[in-house]
Amino acid sequence: MEEEGGSTVKWEVRVSYKRGVQDPEGESTLYALKMLGFDKVKEVHTAKLFIIEGDYSLEDVEKMCRRLLANPVSQDYEIRRVD
Amino acid sequence: MEEEGGSTVKWEVRVSYKRGVQDPEGESTLYALKMLGFDKVKEVHTAKLFIIEGDYSLEDVEKMCRRLLANPVSQDYEIRRVD
Repeated sequence: MEEEGGSTVKWEVRVSYKRGVQDPEGESTLYALKMLGFDKVKEVHTAKLFIIEGDYSLEDVEKMCRRLLANPVSQDYEIRRVD
Repeated sequence: MEEEGGSTVKWEVRVSYKRGVQDPEGESTLYALKMLGFDKVKEVHTAKLFIIEGDYSLEDVEKMCRRLLANPVSQDYEIRRVD
């Protein structure tokens, strides 16, 4: 489907765990891959992506991150424009 | 920390919902952003990233996707090398 009217910007926000914070899904994925025979896997980390469409600036998206998308105590975020 | 010995390749697997499949976290994030006043947001989609370190080929990582990381019924995956 094409975008209908109005300016739309597409942002991609990547939320990952800060160094030193446990990544339980990464750990259980590592374990499961080893169980499946992929025993040369050394590390698995996970991150979440939010793809956000709307007429917003980078500064606005940073506000979204601080207010909702990322936990400042345990998570980092990176924002890039993808449209 | 630096990698110790052995060859390590770093892959990034992006798992997203197929077109037409519900993305409940995207929908609830869209709703929450609107509640916070970001009412120009048109769409939010989510995806999951797995960052996998180990001496594996692209073909091996495709096997990991098919066997564990992605649900072939509802999800697509993209693999890229990031080391």
